[in-house]
Amino acid sequence: MIRARNVKNGRTRNKIQHVLLDAVIVDAAKDAPLQRQLYEELKQLILTGTLRPGTVMPSTRHFSADHGIGRNTVIAAYEQLASEGFLDTSERSRSTVANLALAKPKTIGQPIHQAPSGKLSKRGELMCSQPRQRSIPGEFAFHPGTPEIRQFPFDQWRRLMANRVASVREDIFGYHSISGYPALKESITTYLRSSRNVDCDPSRVVITTGAQAALDLLSRLLLDPGDHVLMEEPGYMGAQSSFLAAGAELHPLHVSSSGWDLDNIPDLPIKALYLTPSCQLPMGVTMRMEQRLRLLETARQRDIWVIEDDFDSEYRFVGQPIPAMQGSDPNGKTIYVGTFAKTLFPALRLGFVVLPPGMTDGMRSAINITGQYPPLVLQATLADFMDRGFFARHLRRMRRLYAKRRERFIEIARETAGQWLELQPSDAGIQTLWHLESEWRDIALAEAAADRQLNIGPLSRHFRHAPGKNGLILGYAAVEEPAVIAGFSKLCSLLQSPPGRT
Amino acid sequence: MIRARNVKNGRTRNKIQHVLLDAVIVDAAKDAPLQRQLYEELKQLILTGTLRPGTVMPSTRHFSADHGIGRNTVIAAYEQLASEGFLDTSERSRSTVANLALAKPKTIGQPIHQAPSGKLSKRGELMCSQPRQRSIPGEFAFHPGTPEIRQFPFDQWRRLMANRVASVREDIFGYHSISGYPALKESITTYLRSSRNVDCDPSRVVITTGAQAALDLLSRLLLDPGDHVLMEEPGYMGAQSSFLAAGAELHPLHVSSSGWDLDNIPDLPIKALYLTPSCQLPMGVTMRMEQRLRLLETARQRDIWVIEDDFDSEYRFVGQPIPAMQGSDPNGKTIYVGTFAKTLFPALRLGFVVLPPGMTDGMRSAINITGQYPPLVLQATLADFMDRGFFARHLRRMRRLYAKRRERFIEIARETAGQWLELQPSDAGIQTLWHLESEWRDIALAEAAADRQLNIGPLSRHFRHAPGKNGLILGYAAVEEPAVIAGFSKLCSLLQSPPGRT
Repeated sequence: MIRARNVKNGRTRNKIQHVLLDAVIVDAAKDAPLQRQLYEELKQLILTGTLRPGTVMPSTRHFSADHGIGRNTVIAAYEQLASEGFLDTSERSRSTVANLALAKPKTIGQPIHQAPSGKLSKRGELMCSQPRQRSIPGEFAFHPGTPEIRQFPFDQWRRLMANRVASVREDIFGYHSISGYPALKESITTYLRSSRNVDCDPSRVVITTGAQAALDLLSRLLLDPGDHVLMEEPGYMGAQSSFLAAGAELHPLHVSSSGWDLDNIPDLPIKALYLTPSCQLPMGVTMRMEQRLRLLETARQRDIWVIEDDFDSEYRFVGQPIPAMQGSDPNGKTIYVGTFAKTLFPALRLGFVVLPPGMTDGMRSAINITGQYPPLVLQATLADFMDRGFFARHLRRMRRLYAKRRERFIEIARETAGQWLELQPSDAGIQTLWHLESEWRDIALAEAAADRQLNIGPLSRHFRHAPGKNGLILGYAAVEEPAVIAGFSKLCSLLQSPPGRT
Repeated sequence: MIRARNVKNGRTRNKIQHVLLDAVIVDAAKDAPLQRQLYEELKQLILTGTLRPGTVMPSTRHFSADHGIGRNTVIAAYEQLASEGFLDTSERSRSTVANLALAKPKTIGQPIHQAPSGKLSKRGELMCSQPRQRSIPGEFAFHPGTPEIRQFPFDQWRRLMANRVASVREDIFGYHSISGYPALKESITTYLRSSRNVDCDPSRVVITTGAQAALDLLSRLLLDPGDHVLMEEPGYMGAQSSFLAAGAELHPLHVSSSGWDLDNIPDLPIKALYLTPSCQLPMGVTMRMEQRLRLLETARQRDIWVIEDDFDSEYRFVGQPIPAMQGSDPNGKTIYVGTFAKTLFPALRLGFVVLPPGMTDGMRSAINITGQYPPLVLQATLADFMDRGFFARHLRRMRRLYAKRRERFIEIARETAGQWLELQPSDAGIQTLWHLESEWRDIALAEAAADRQLNIGPLSRHFRHAPGKNGLILGYAAVEEPAVIAGFSKLCSLLQSPPGRT
């Protein structure tokens, strides 16, 4: 090893250092260009300290001659090293090795062995601690909330999308339309007014990357840490996680098969109330008008935001779809959240909110800061899809299909598993809820089912405050009859041998 | 008006009430189905209290005969009203009007006059108070950070996307792959390793809906309210907003044309440090290796997360692209954030992070809760686009185009506005920074320019702690020569008459 104290003067030191450069080998047979190879070799020598700081580099002419490399290659490598700070270039013609001795960088590609020592934030830890449902990819039986995507008119969708991709327009490909593509806001308004009785105009619609993103944005826009939120129990875990991640304190609004318990709303300054009134998740019940009006009046009196999540009311098998609660609210306290995940396909990642007047600006700011606006090409495609009637037609077709599948699903369930499962009556939705009468606890049963490639949703996971009721949430919409039979065969073989018995 | 005390018994009351029903008119010539019309008419009578609670409704047979409407139509309308809670149905055959007297709902369609009284959260107010840059849609001259989208190979993109839309596969259309489509994570890894020297494997890549979404997720995952964050000044406003929205306290890391001021890092428990080392936003300078290593060593010693935002380093006009800082970090404290907004097109809404080992799970939780995973069909299309070499080819083409445009842009700027504008030297990026020597303040000038349909970015907006320096950020990449000339003509006519002079 060559030590600094042995070096008498700069010239000698440089000569000794230059010997090290003889080891630099570049190989024209390698894939990487010579210039890149040379750059990498020199960088390693500098990074490892082999080429010492302050060393004056050979001139590009000399280096080129000594190594038989074209001079332009050497110049390019030197320039690259200089621009990254490995070499210092001054007014003089010769480059010197920069002083990088402050830290020893790792060799590129060498794995990092330590886990990162910095901790997550408290809210980061909280987000990580939220329960996540284990589910088997690609197994539709009996994944809750999964629509039949194989029946989606992808040919029409593809044509519409191709048209939109082709029309290179700044409003499709630029940074504008943060609150949503205008044509889609129009289409959604038309649809909501006629089909859901929502009080709506395009200026109050904001397009989001799905309902979950809408809930997350609303949570942050409306809730400060410690704010009280009234949340359905059992209720939608995704909403619950959003509110918790925003720092809210949750209180239960109990829901049973007979409806919402409005007599025990806690006497606290509640900031927001989360509801799925048209098809409660997971109970599947529909809120009666009397309860809707009572809740809206409570919201008015106590200044509570009502977040109406209308996630799954399109598929109603008794009567017409129930109008949204938002349309009955005279006070502008209801925020309507919708999604296309169930009506089109989940991976579309498009949802929307209808805001009370005066709140659009706030939502736009939140979207701007969080970068959560969905790709405009998908928004434009969806607008076309709705405007040309494909959306309404698809809904009608699916409603017929789901009605048949649901009936058959319930029949098979009762025939095969009727001794353990009792149906919770419901008129809507793409999933069914069954009360479980077994020594099996639903969560353990779901785990065991997942081991057999069967997806089922345990009801008790949807309880936060009270002990969870034993039940199964079973999706039927995406499952054809043979898969239904096979699924129940797996489920029954589990139910026949409860865990205590083996 | 019929008062309750005048009603002697239920039967009489019902008769009187039924007279009201004579006013119900349905019209086959209208667009809405008869059943819907009847439903709406009855609902209005109930909602307005005209049909009083407890009224026993006429039988469907009578109603049908009295009004000349088919009986099935009446049954369907009654059932719909019952399912929504407007009518009560009991064991007896006759329906009664439900008691909705608790609140008076608004008539559908009647506009809400009051603004909502509930306030936003403190963080909501904070999000709304973040400065937003006014910009004119569709005007590329001289919008900072806008790539040339008209040169994007949309034909190839469209073909690839059509293929992906056609292949209905559960991994493309399901709820899985929350951290990103596996094939895209592979493609990004290959690209980052070879082109950016990033230490990466697919398990550490998470796909986001753009860099802004990545910054927002990281802010929440890493920062608690009150945590200290060191932020470049001048710096990227989007990152600043994310940190502020997460409740962080910001401290400046000053950047000048000569680099980053590492000697004045405050002696506080800093949790995270935001950097754009390869092409500083907005200064355009590149961090030298010596500074990088010094900062990484500081980060190690003081346990600081380094967030490296590599937003605009692909377009480098001197030498090769500078490797990412992350690849030199031996301690796994650097989080690398990337985007396709500048290299492909902004409306694609795709970005990504490369996380230190062990942090992927946290990020996946955050994405799950915030619903921020991008549409899988776009992810799959992009993976194909990269794997087939289209991405690399597009980058090469754009690099040549931008080099020419940049040179010409600078020439024209100097020729026409040289007396007011002095170029900040920079080797990279799709925008240019000019120091402004004028009685105009940059913000006022940008406002006046926007009035003339010209987009320019004021430098002083990027300062938070110190008084802003006077300067203009001008995008050149998306602007062809005639538009450059026209833009400078507008700008010069403003510069010739500063506000004080008129």
